[in-house]
Amino acid sequence: MPSAESERLDPDRLLGASAAQRALARRLYDGVAGLPIVSPHGHVPVELLAEPEARLGPPGRLFVTGDHYILRMLYSQGIPLEELGLRPLDGSPAEEDDRKIWQLLANSFRFFAGTPSGLWLSATLADVFGVEERLSAASADAIYDQVAARLASPELAPRALLDRFEIELLATSDAAESDLTAHRRLHADGLTGRVCPTFRPRAIVAIGAPGWRGALAQFERVCGLEIAGYEDFVVAIEQQRRQFIELGAKATDHAVESVQSERLAYAEAEAIFRRALAGELEPGEPDRFAAHVLWESARMSREDGLVMQIRAGSVRDHNPKLAERFGIDIGGDIPISVDWTRGLRPLLVDHGSDPALHLILSTLDEAGYSRELAPLAGHYPAVLLGPPWWFNDSPNGTRRYLDSVTETAGFQNLSGFADDAHNLVAIPARHDIWRRATCSWLASRVLDGALAEEDAAWLAGELACGLARRAFRLPAP
Amino acid sequence: MPSAESERLDPDRLLGASAAQRALARRLYDGVAGLPIVSPHGHVPVELLAEPEARLGPPGRLFVTGDHYILRMLYSQGIPLEELGLRPLDGSPAEEDDRKIWQLLANSFRFFAGTPSGLWLSATLADVFGVEERLSAASADAIYDQVAARLASPELAPRALLDRFEIELLATSDAAESDLTAHRRLHADGLTGRVCPTFRPRAIVAIGAPGWRGALAQFERVCGLEIAGYEDFVVAIEQQRRQFIELGAKATDHAVESVQSERLAYAEAEAIFRRALAGELEPGEPDRFAAHVLWESARMSREDGLVMQIRAGSVRDHNPKLAERFGIDIGGDIPISVDWTRGLRPLLVDHGSDPALHLILSTLDEAGYSRELAPLAGHYPAVLLGPPWWFNDSPNGTRRYLDSVTETAGFQNLSGFADDAHNLVAIPARHDIWRRATCSWLASRVLDGALAEEDAAWLAGELACGLARRAFRLPAP
Amino acid sequence: MPSAESERLDPDRLLGASAAQRALARRLYDGVAGLPIVSPHGHVPVELLAEPEARLGPPGRLFVTGDHYILRMLYSQGIPLEELGLRPLDGSPAEEDDRKIWQLLANSFRFFAGTPSGLWLSATLADVFGVEERLSAASADAIYDQVAARLASPELAPRALLDRFEIELLATSDAAESDLTAHRRLHADGLTGRVCPTFRPRAIVAIGAPGWRGALAQFERVCGLEIAGYEDFVVAIEQQRRQFIELGAKATDHAVESVQSERLAYAEAEAIFRRALAGELEPGEPDRFAAHVLWESARMSREDGLVMQIRAGSVRDHNPKLAERFGIDIGGDIPISVDWTRGLRPLLVDHGSDPALHLILSTLDEAGYSRELAPLAGHYPAVLLGPPWWFNDSPNGTRRYLDSVTETAGFQNLSGFADDAHNLVAIPARHDIWRRATCSWLASRVLDGALAEEDAAWLAGELACGLARRAFRLPAP
Repeated sequence: MPSAESERLDPDRLLGASAAQRALARRLYDGVAGLPIVSPHGHVPVELLAEPEARLGPPGRLFVTGDHYILRMLYSQGIPLEELGLRPLDGSPAEEDDRKIWQLLANSFRFFAGTPSGLWLSATLADVFGVEERLSAASADAIYDQVAARLASPELAPRALLDRFEIELLATSDAAESDLTAHRRLHADGLTGRVCPTFRPRAIVAIGAPGWRGALAQFERVCGLEIAGYEDFVVAIEQQRRQFIELGAKATDHAVESVQSERLAYAEAEAIFRRALAGELEPGEPDRFAAHVLWESARMSREDGLVMQIRAGSVRDHNPKLAERFGIDIGGDIPISVDWTRGLRPLLVDHGSDPALHLILSTLDEAGYSRELAPLAGHYPAVLLGPPWWFNDSPNGTRRYLDSVTETAGFQNLSGFADDAHNLVAIPARHDIWRRATCSWLASRVLDGALAEEDAAWLAGELACGLARRAFRLPAP
Repeated sequence: MPSAESERLDPDRLLGASAAQRALARRLYDGVAGLPIVSPHGHVPVELLAEPEARLGPPGRLFVTGDHYILRMLYSQGIPLEELGLRPLDGSPAEEDDRKIWQLLANSFRFFAGTPSGLWLSATLADVFGVEERLSAASADAIYDQVAARLASPELAPRALLDRFEIELLATSDAAESDLTAHRRLHADGLTGRVCPTFRPRAIVAIGAPGWRGALAQFERVCGLEIAGYEDFVVAIEQQRRQFIELGAKATDHAVESVQSERLAYAEAEAIFRRALAGELEPGEPDRFAAHVLWESARMSREDGLVMQIRAGSVRDHNPKLAERFGIDIGGDIPISVDWTRGLRPLLVDHGSDPALHLILSTLDEAGYSRELAPLAGHYPAVLLGPPWWFNDSPNGTRRYLDSVTETAGFQNLSGFADDAHNLVAIPARHDIWRRATCSWLASRVLDGALAEEDAAWLAGELACGLARRAFRLPAP
Repeated sequence: MPSAESERLDPDRLLGASAAQRALARRLYDGVAGLPIVSPHGHVPVELLAEPEARLGPPGRLFVTGDHYILRMLYSQGIPLEELGLRPLDGSPAEEDDRKIWQLLANSFRFFAGTPSGLWLSATLADVFGVEERLSAASADAIYDQVAARLASPELAPRALLDRFEIELLATSDAAESDLTAHRRLHADGLTGRVCPTFRPRAIVAIGAPGWRGALAQFERVCGLEIAGYEDFVVAIEQQRRQFIELGAKATDHAVESVQSERLAYAEAEAIFRRALAGELEPGEPDRFAAHVLWESARMSREDGLVMQIRAGSVRDHNPKLAERFGIDIGGDIPISVDWTRGLRPLLVDHGSDPALHLILSTLDEAGYSRELAPLAGHYPAVLLGPPWWFNDSPNGTRRYLDSVTETAGFQNLSGFADDAHNLVAIPARHDIWRRATCSWLASRVLDGALAEEDAAWLAGELACGLARRAFRLPAP
């Protein structure tokens, strides 16, 4: 990770509000700031890396149109998504002048004061693009030119950034029905192990949902199998997981609205799946089927070793009008409360006591940190607690997380950090802020006499890389 | 707002626990301490202001009998409400000696150590009444005399306090069925714009509830309309909202236990309303009707521009024996968890993307801050996040609020402060504590390098006045 | 409480992260560190105290096998419980070499960095056993010998520890169907008043549960009554409560999963109980019966003066495979969210306004602190808020608790501290950490100008002993 700082950025930012805390946190941070980046979960488009000639950008598209944090905030302030470059599905026009899109961000950059988006953007502009001026309506144009020029240079090519950023592992997110073409190309180029796919069976599991048949047909194609029933479905999934593993996959990823797990009798799973194929599902069956597949996925992970990630509690496309106009996953994720304790119990009863399973739980409902997730991680050998996710991956969110979970779960039941980034150039900033925030928090515990400094130094490294390496079964460096 | 401090009060109170934080917070606070008071939501009785000769007091009635925070705490310690001056509905006796009521507060004042009620009272006694001694059993009598004398003086007349406190706007709370006599008098005296009503359709919407028919009859009288069905009901509401607007109203206020919104077919709303009139409601219909009226209220606000406030999650009159003995709204409000994400979705789907709607959401369930309210405010153009409310309008509550919501929602999706005060003389203290607590929190973020000091100075002003002015569409000063 | 500190332990640990906070917290702490220990709720086996010759130990069994916090963490890291000395019910072997069990803890002691278990263990080893070295794989053997030798000495005999630790009151937990033999022996030896039983009617109330008939039969035996119906059941409970009171009992303890209270018609309670005896319960009846008995228990407490404790929100034996293998209460408690506001309302409506009732509410769901429990305690004369419990009895947990509840409930509506300890030798460390954490928190509020130092000094003593004494009706010292 680049250690050079720009003039503008406070080198001690986020390390503490008192001189004593900053001094100690700085010592801890100096020990981890230069460690490699382990990024076991994120959304960087794999095509960017598969194609050696691919380039990022341009600035507006990269930092605005392609960044759902930025889009949210500007939309909430009344700016239509079309003006931010998002093209409606019906072909209506959208802003195409990239400089104008960038200008809209610059005009509103003050709205990001105190937000992680603001911190990420400032740090990325400074550290990756050498921007020393603050982004504003007045400076927008000059900074645009500087960023655009830099993006065009070979050293900002995505593959070059893997080295520049010292990325040890970058996991992408890939639908179960993906043909993995891009990952095969990476494999051919010797990048397997450094860039890897993640198995996401979201669409193929959503029986009865609008896109299900299409996803299933695509899944049959990539597997080369006909799926006439649940048994075929399981066989195909197991086969495709092996394909993912051959291309370096470390993990699966399961996004669920509310956590439900259930072990159906085999005949019942079969019957439901066949009713889905026949278009004769009863109400409630899609949910029960998904609950069962979650259970089954844990069973598979115990067999093939893929780490299992469950992310729960987000109502996707809460604003359906946006989803209709622009497509899914743009219409606003809004969290809900989650009952992990009862919802996950059937899965945990059967699989949770197996230390060979790594099951990582992530939430958007912070009330569950101390109430459910830390106790679950502090009991079940299989369970690891995921890092603060989405809205909570922020300096204060990190502090609340560490405050709430470490006393109950300890540190060894955490899975370390995951940046969840869509934007490749922002990855260093995200890891850097996590490292600063964790070191600052550890320093406060040392100053309070709750932790020895030597333990804090060890834990800073664990939080930066060590825990993620072990959670995702990476080789020790 | 008065800036003079008493001898007894620490001038740096609530500005931070370290010297560095206090020094910076003091700079921020000095920039906002003298700003006018914008009070867009509260419960000061409008009659006090309508009548030029009205006077506050006496001390016991003003600070004890009339203050539900004080009543709660003393009642929880076993003091019967009758001894605190509250008269039972059945005519049973209650303490009438105001000095004795005051003495009970003084005897127990230590119970308020560390509570916002204690802070408000101390600051009000010092700043408004010049009391320099600590309230205690021993000092009660002397302080009573001092306060009583001051209350009798012309400069403590309610209308005089509007100037003394530099109140730019004071919104009262007014039932939809109010005849607005007092506000008309204010209008005649040229105070419209400075004191304004808020439209609260609670009683007329509660079809089937005990007081509904009375409220509806009163509503018909003040509207001069006969309400024979839902269509009449909507026409009458729209007309009465216009009356409120003419008298300066900025907003409506909707108190709901759990958030439900729903768009009923017009015919169904009509049928339910007519069954209510006929006394033939089915179970569940009152809730569905209320959910529909919430949706309809958003529709009206988009048309007439009234800001829409929703306050959710309070079980009113949790202790029904007190409600029976003393009347409603004295029996204890106890919060519950609220599902904003799913409950408000039907309303938001239809109205949430309109930036012309200002929809302010307030909760008593802090778990919803980061989980639901900040994400909703950070996405929907219409949604603004209300300030910490009721139990959470306190120094720690303010810190928790800012910690939890600003990283996700930013500051521009907040609606600023609202004091929710019943007691006119306590308003400056409440705004002052908010300003201190926000400046202290901003200072800690600056010291931690998460915020530039110039941004913090701007945000201190936004939190003190700017956000509330824009949220409630007040003219810029 | 012993004030001597070991070389290794920072004498200012947990008193604050800044010099100013530590200095003030130290003054507050010095005023309370030597106060006696009031332990109104815990799980020390009464037999240890009843038998003058009883001895604690050996080290592995005392600190590992018998400590469910330690077991949880080691189990979560993949160590089978058998290796930690837990013997399966089916007679399968378990580790019997106490030194090996101790070694497992020592090898993994780093996992406890930053956890309360780690703090308790370090402080206990230092203060009670004079251990000055840090526990590790290397030091395990020498420390084992030191601890074992000390455990064998007369001054570590359980009864001697009552004096050494300056324990004013130690309440044990005792099933309603207990024959109280051990407490009778303590009574004969003049220890009543210092060690006392607590009435826990968990098993006899769980109609229809597997162990219910056995518990009921045992209850009939110890009462000398035949229980043929609900009326008999109530009579027997009232009689047995009197037995407990004669042996010094201060309180009852009710552990419930989700809070439900209900007042059944007498005939209905009778009918359900008789159906339970006949094995003809309908679904839902066990829960309704438990809800009714909760209501009835409050009625009894108003009559006989036993303090009523309700602990809610823990799913017991979440991991049933462990419960099957090793017995109940070892399989992991995992919390759930609790709806106190609606669930407890029927009980509170009838009993909550009686200041003669002391009803202490404890939760594992911190979201309920500010949302429900502080408002309930701040309104109902009967309600007191219990201290942070189980996972939340920790330095950070204590800070979150005080931050969240004191502004709404004040301090006089709290019930003080309860250590909930199973391990007698760890009791001083647990009270010490509470006293340090509360003093540190109070100091921060004083430095912030929210609390006067004289009030903080008074509140430190209240939190250390005073509140617990009054909550449990102990004589003033």
